[in-house]
Amino acid sequence: MAFFTKRYHPPGTSPGTLIEKAPSTTAMPLQIHLIDYNADEITIRDNVDASDCRVYLQRKSMTWVHVQGQPTELALRELGESFQLHSLAMEDVLNSGQRPKVEPFDDQLFIVMSLPLMKADIVNVQQVSIFLNKNFLVSFYDGDFSLFQPIVKRLQDRGSRLRAKGVDFLLYGLLDLVIDQGFPVLEKFGLQLEELEEQILEVAGSVTLEKIHILKRELILLRRMLWPQREVINQLLRGDHKLIRDDTLVYLRDCYDHTIQVMDLLETYRDMTGSMLDIYLSSVSNRMNDIMRVLTVIATIFIPLTFIVGVYGMNFDRNAGPLSMPELGWPYGYLLVWLGMIVIAVLMLTFFRRRGWL
Amino acid sequence: MAFFTKRYHPPGTSPGTLIEKAPSTTAMPLQIHLIDYNADEITIRDNVDASDCRVYLQRKSMTWVHVQGQPTELALRELGESFQLHSLAMEDVLNSGQRPKVEPFDDQLFIVMSLPLMKADIVNVQQVSIFLNKNFLVSFYDGDFSLFQPIVKRLQDRGSRLRAKGVDFLLYGLLDLVIDQGFPVLEKFGLQLEELEEQILEVAGSVTLEKIHILKRELILLRRMLWPQREVINQLLRGDHKLIRDDTLVYLRDCYDHTIQVMDLLETYRDMTGSMLDIYLSSVSNRMNDIMRVLTVIATIFIPLTFIVGVYGMNFDRNAGPLSMPELGWPYGYLLVWLGMIVIAVLMLTFFRRRGWL
Amino acid sequence: MAFFTKRYHPPGTSPGTLIEKAPSTTAMPLQIHLIDYNADEITIRDNVDASDCRVYLQRKSMTWVHVQGQPTELALRELGESFQLHSLAMEDVLNSGQRPKVEPFDDQLFIVMSLPLMKADIVNVQQVSIFLNKNFLVSFYDGDFSLFQPIVKRLQDRGSRLRAKGVDFLLYGLLDLVIDQGFPVLEKFGLQLEELEEQILEVAGSVTLEKIHILKRELILLRRMLWPQREVINQLLRGDHKLIRDDTLVYLRDCYDHTIQVMDLLETYRDMTGSMLDIYLSSVSNRMNDIMRVLTVIATIFIPLTFIVGVYGMNFDRNAGPLSMPELGWPYGYLLVWLGMIVIAVLMLTFFRRRGWL
Amino acid sequence: MAFFTKRYHPPGTSPGTLIEKAPSTTAMPLQIHLIDYNADEITIRDNVDASDCRVYLQRKSMTWVHVQGQPTELALRELGESFQLHSLAMEDVLNSGQRPKVEPFDDQLFIVMSLPLMKADIVNVQQVSIFLNKNFLVSFYDGDFSLFQPIVKRLQDRGSRLRAKGVDFLLYGLLDLVIDQGFPVLEKFGLQLEELEEQILEVAGSVTLEKIHILKRELILLRRMLWPQREVINQLLRGDHKLIRDDTLVYLRDCYDHTIQVMDLLETYRDMTGSMLDIYLSSVSNRMNDIMRVLTVIATIFIPLTFIVGVYGMNFDRNAGPLSMPELGWPYGYLLVWLGMIVIAVLMLTFFRRRGWL
Amino acid sequence: MAFFTKRYHPPGTSPGTLIEKAPSTTAMPLQIHLIDYNADEITIRDNVDASDCRVYLQRKSMTWVHVQGQPTELALRELGESFQLHSLAMEDVLNSGQRPKVEPFDDQLFIVMSLPLMKADIVNVQQVSIFLNKNFLVSFYDGDFSLFQPIVKRLQDRGSRLRAKGVDFLLYGLLDLVIDQGFPVLEKFGLQLEELEEQILEVAGSVTLEKIHILKRELILLRRMLWPQREVINQLLRGDHKLIRDDTLVYLRDCYDHTIQVMDLLETYRDMTGSMLDIYLSSVSNRMNDIMRVLTVIATIFIPLTFIVGVYGMNFDRNAGPLSMPELGWPYGYLLVWLGMIVIAVLMLTFFRRRGWL
Repeated sequence: MAFFTKRYHPPGTSPGTLIEKAPSTTAMPLQIHLIDYNADEITIRDNVDASDCRVYLQRKSMTWVHVQGQPTELALRELGESFQLHSLAMEDVLNSGQRPKVEPFDDQLFIVMSLPLMKADIVNVQQVSIFLNKNFLVSFYDGDFSLFQPIVKRLQDRGSRLRAKGVDFLLYGLLDLVIDQGFPVLEKFGLQLEELEEQILEVAGSVTLEKIHILKRELILLRRMLWPQREVINQLLRGDHKLIRDDTLVYLRDCYDHTIQVMDLLETYRDMTGSMLDIYLSSVSNRMNDIMRVLTVIATIFIPLTFIVGVYGMNFDRNAGPLSMPELGWPYGYLLVWLGMIVIAVLMLTFFRRRGWL
Repeated sequence: MAFFTKRYHPPGTSPGTLIEKAPSTTAMPLQIHLIDYNADEITIRDNVDASDCRVYLQRKSMTWVHVQGQPTELALRELGESFQLHSLAMEDVLNSGQRPKVEPFDDQLFIVMSLPLMKADIVNVQQVSIFLNKNFLVSFYDGDFSLFQPIVKRLQDRGSRLRAKGVDFLLYGLLDLVIDQGFPVLEKFGLQLEELEEQILEVAGSVTLEKIHILKRELILLRRMLWPQREVINQLLRGDHKLIRDDTLVYLRDCYDHTIQVMDLLETYRDMTGSMLDIYLSSVSNRMNDIMRVLTVIATIFIPLTFIVGVYGMNFDRNAGPLSMPELGWPYGYLLVWLGMIVIAVLMLTFFRRRGWL
Repeated sequence: MAFFTKRYHPPGTSPGTLIEKAPSTTAMPLQIHLIDYNADEITIRDNVDASDCRVYLQRKSMTWVHVQGQPTELALRELGESFQLHSLAMEDVLNSGQRPKVEPFDDQLFIVMSLPLMKADIVNVQQVSIFLNKNFLVSFYDGDFSLFQPIVKRLQDRGSRLRAKGVDFLLYGLLDLVIDQGFPVLEKFGLQLEELEEQILEVAGSVTLEKIHILKRELILLRRMLWPQREVINQLLRGDHKLIRDDTLVYLRDCYDHTIQVMDLLETYRDMTGSMLDIYLSSVSNRMNDIMRVLTVIATIFIPLTFIVGVYGMNFDRNAGPLSMPELGWPYGYLLVWLGMIVIAVLMLTFFRRRGWL
Repeated sequence: MAFFTKRYHPPGTSPGTLIEKAPSTTAMPLQIHLIDYNADEITIRDNVDASDCRVYLQRKSMTWVHVQGQPTELALRELGESFQLHSLAMEDVLNSGQRPKVEPFDDQLFIVMSLPLMKADIVNVQQVSIFLNKNFLVSFYDGDFSLFQPIVKRLQDRGSRLRAKGVDFLLYGLLDLVIDQGFPVLEKFGLQLEELEEQILEVAGSVTLEKIHILKRELILLRRMLWPQREVINQLLRGDHKLIRDDTLVYLRDCYDHTIQVMDLLETYRDMTGSMLDIYLSSVSNRMNDIMRVLTVIATIFIPLTFIVGVYGMNFDRNAGPLSMPELGWPYGYLLVWLGMIVIAVLMLTFFRRRGWL
Repeated sequence: MAFFTKRYHPPGTSPGTLIEKAPSTTAMPLQIHLIDYNADEITIRDNVDASDCRVYLQRKSMTWVHVQGQPTELALRELGESFQLHSLAMEDVLNSGQRPKVEPFDDQLFIVMSLPLMKADIVNVQQVSIFLNKNFLVSFYDGDFSLFQPIVKRLQDRGSRLRAKGVDFLLYGLLDLVIDQGFPVLEKFGLQLEELEEQILEVAGSVTLEKIHILKRELILLRRMLWPQREVINQLLRGDHKLIRDDTLVYLRDCYDHTIQVMDLLETYRDMTGSMLDIYLSSVSNRMNDIMRVLTVIATIFIPLTFIVGVYGMNFDRNAGPLSMPELGWPYGYLLVWLGMIVIAVLMLTFFRRRGWL
């Protein structure tokens, strides 16, 4: 995850300006899906033109238009005109990397959500933008539409609650799906944390340090993207928007509960990584201390011994007088020196062991 | 305690879907207990079928149905229909690991609580789910029903306040019991902390580090599970739920006070472990410093002495000239060298001692 | 101060149950003091029975009953009945170690306060429980009644404001006394901190570390006990309790100000100990660094010298050829070696000094 | 960025006193720009006198007066009188380095904003002061007017929304431009952070430390200057100022969203630098530990070997007796010593490697 | 600055008791200044008796009584009676070291402020107490009255706003002066911080550590004294006190803005010192690491060389056999050993340099 992912127009650009961007590498090809349904019928069209959608507006049925991939300026403008989407909101769809938010425009709700996905141990947060109107819903998502297949399937099921209720319930379905994507991601984080914890207490090396850092960093970035989702759902709950019916509110409350659970886990994990770094640092320094202590003790034992053998390596002339290294002439001098050195070594070892230094 | 304990459905699953899970290892066998009581009579049936409960609904007496163990999908569905429990709430009963919360459904209150238990020095947090209705209460708990025996006993006591009052007072009794389980757990934590503190100031080793880490970790996880309980009781107090009578509120306030005390202790203990880690780290490094200082001083004293004996171990030809190691021929040369070395050693020791290095 | 000081009943005990506890070691012998007063008369009885108090209830005069020491279950029950004290509150009196709080019961206020006392440099926090009624006040405190003598004296003074006003002013007097006990305690902490600070910058040793830790720990525990007092007084100020007259509020506001000052100082001291630990750690490591640097420099200077003398201690046969250690035969070889070594030592010393390593 | 950038009058100076300051080095030459416009016409005058502006007040058209550079006391006074700007506000214009704020004066709004600019990797925060009145807007900015050229261009465009709407929309345009300047600055910070992160995990040296410190410092200062901008926009949104029309509020909401995004990124970056410092410190100490370990192991292996060769360098008289260094006379003694030393070295290496010390 | 500066009565003292304290060393001699003014006239009397002030109360003019130095109990009592100051407030005047606060008494406002002054690089925070009444203001300050001379001068200026408006504007003047004293103090702190920062990155020693600590400590204490001032001004702004007229509120708002700026800077500086300590610690350890690394490398290079020369210092009898140190007899043996040692040294140096250890 890069640190700065927001797209923005140069400062001073007129609000609502739509400037086409180079598509991001993860973006899917542009494709507009249209699902028109009521309790009795359902039409699913997988690759429509922006202009084709207008027909469905007049009908009384519910319409869900989903735009996969990065829309061109033209497509956006057409969609915007067909569905009367506010230009400030359209700008936010194009400049992805927005914070989750909800914005009421006259008779329309504009909602931005963050969708966390984990691919090969790397978290990716993508923007999902939703416009809710009285009888239609327009959603935008750079990535693969197949992510929303569970919703489509439930729509195809005639007896499902989703089919029977209004587009506000479809909105709930989408929000719930986006928020619940947090759980598998956090589950994987949880597993990684447990693994790391074991590693730290066993073989802490510089690889572990890097892993902790990357985890911490991802949690910081993830928190930034997911934290405002709680506020989004809360606003929907309290906002008294006439587009959201009362019996959908019970379900949205469930959604709200999920956002809190996600944030709760994120905070706990952040606390955990902090605690792990502390433990990592002290276990590394503990291990280092152990090594240094043992090595220093070895050196300290040999240093006086080396001094002693040095003494008897001196070349004083034994003939110079009776006090000039007479030990060298003693028959058991050599043995005595060895004995003395062994005694010294044993005494030192005992001393060190008693003090708990070995 | 694992880091990720929440159970969840795959994202996009229809709300209220009940998918049977593999029972957790700590779960007790499924058993439904039914206690039907009023001021005059009490019926206790320890192993009833979900379908049997329906009969008690028509009666005017209070009914408490407790489900021990992990209910099957079928049992849940039957109970749900008998007592008209909301499907979203039923999903939360099944997907244990929820955050404590209270949710009002029409004429029903759904409450999730976290029950902390300590077994063999390991804290375990389990979910207790409670549905409160006008004249019945349904509770779910994976673990052993015997935990609730004090409540059953008080119910059996004819003169008890619990027997005389409504199911809202039974709710208070259950909440109080669940919350008060925090005290013995925290008492044990307190004792562990006191023990740890003594250990740190005496013999800090890597075992202590691991203990601090585990304690800190458990406190973090425990805090996450218990923190929202305060909010739950607060909501019950302020919520103006008609199911909870005014004279029960005084008792719930006492309950609220207990949740605050539990959180207070948790926070204090967290501060304590933080402080302990600091002390641990510095006492470890103090001890290491002491060792290294003594050893280095020993080495430093012998290094110049070894140099001196090295000097007189050189093989310069004494016959080469009068200045070529004449000391070797002095009658007291050897003694002088020893004397010199002793003087140097004493001077260094004095210097080091004065400086406070020894 | 122990970490867990709360007394509690086993979870599931019926609310308001009074179970007699073993008296704490610091508790004074049980003694009930009764002071009955109005503007004209005052009766002080120092050792009354719980049952004797009932007589004073009928009178129009103000009555203050103070229970010193740990009351037996029987005494409590009698007092409870005489003065109609709520059973939940009585439980909190017995289970000392409560958080400060205020609880309104019908026509009664129950207040728990924490009284900090310093004995021999150790802080002790004890519970003071107060029941306020229309014309009587019952207070409980394990410790010595003499602590409240200033209040008794002011009551004995005929012209005093305390004597002229109602029991709510007596309540203020007691609260003020309890809160103001924080100042001498904090003053001593302040002095200890100043002492510690000096020590740290001079002779930081492991004793200092322990002192910092104990101070920090006491501040954490003290904070936990005193923090809610602010909320207690605030609730009394805003609570619109009819038992507290308007002209007492001015004085309670002064009280509130004192609780804030106490908390303020506690927070500041906590910041200070944190800052001191940082300084302690770095001054310890600074000192260690100084020692190691000097010692290592000494060793580093002698190591090349020892190598040189080692070279000329080699036994190569000078007769083997003209290049086989001819230096040993030079008349000034020995002098040259000494010269060389002195030059090397001086160069190294200069180098180290220039680099600021010595 | 200096730590203290606020300009202030000596304490006790009368409020609203205008004391001319030495112009800051970054200030542009004083120049007053005047743009008078309505839907039909537009007049742009680039270098007018303060006194010339008064004429435009009577007209019904919208007037924007922009003062570039540091105004003299005289110019300020003239402008103040012409446009009836409040003297307290004028003081704040002169004493630059104010916190962003909004202050309502009678029928005027005074707004201070912080404009972050990055020049050669150094962030510079400058004050932009704006007075909003019913049909004119006066803005002050020390730096180059060309920064506001995008606004001027949009004004010149006949069909633009800016031209059609009132001065409150012009205010929005200016605020939006000022706030959006945060994005390129933060983008550069983001890049610097990513660079730093790579460096840390590769070649952490003291240069990196300084870089982290400077980054952290700039983030702290930037946060101080930008944090209150959020509150400014929020106050404009909620303030019910009659000068700001309802249809401008939608756009201001977009502005508010941007301030939150800026703060969000700043906070995230601050968390990141904190995390990076941790990683830096531990990777430095890891590297140091690696070096010391290897070196100490080398020393430890040679110390016993040096002792051994020292032993056989002793000069005991082999003729003194059969136990006086007989090894020296053995035909393979020398070889055996070498063998012994090699064995010892290999054993030690194996031991160290097994223990993971090498 | 001492840690505990509050003066207090022994706990249990009757509220409003005035006990004379030993004057603090910084206190000026007691002197009462009286300034009586209206738009037309002004009387300034520099050394009046407390009893003299009473006369001015009857007049319609505004009266400002300022008490310099520590008042005696008698003087306080007299002033209290003359101006009907509340006894609880008088106690706070005497017991200096109060937190800033505002307290409304009937038709009087009592305000305590903290005045920060810097003398010889040491911050001193002194209490300024102010009583505001309908047409008089009484202020108390231990230190020199000359501090308030700018106000007196403005009062003497006939045309000044201060002279024309009521005592509430005088109150504003005093508050503004007290608060603005924070700016020069913080400016000096800012300069000290910038200096420290340079020192740290250059020559961090133990002096720097002490400086950082003292700065941090002073910021903590200063924060404690200044933080509540913001609340004081805020309360005055919102308090709906009839003593403060509406047109003074605009000016107080400016005052409020200044308190926020002061706190803002204090917080930023605290962050800075925290960051500096981090940098200090790591730059110290970086420097230490550099030294140790170089020294250890030197030692490590000489250790194998010393071993080699030790080998050829062994005294094995070359006559014992052909394998007994034949090297010693080789004509170029000595040269070869030198060569070998040079090669080894160069190889090690290369290896260390490649690894970046030198």
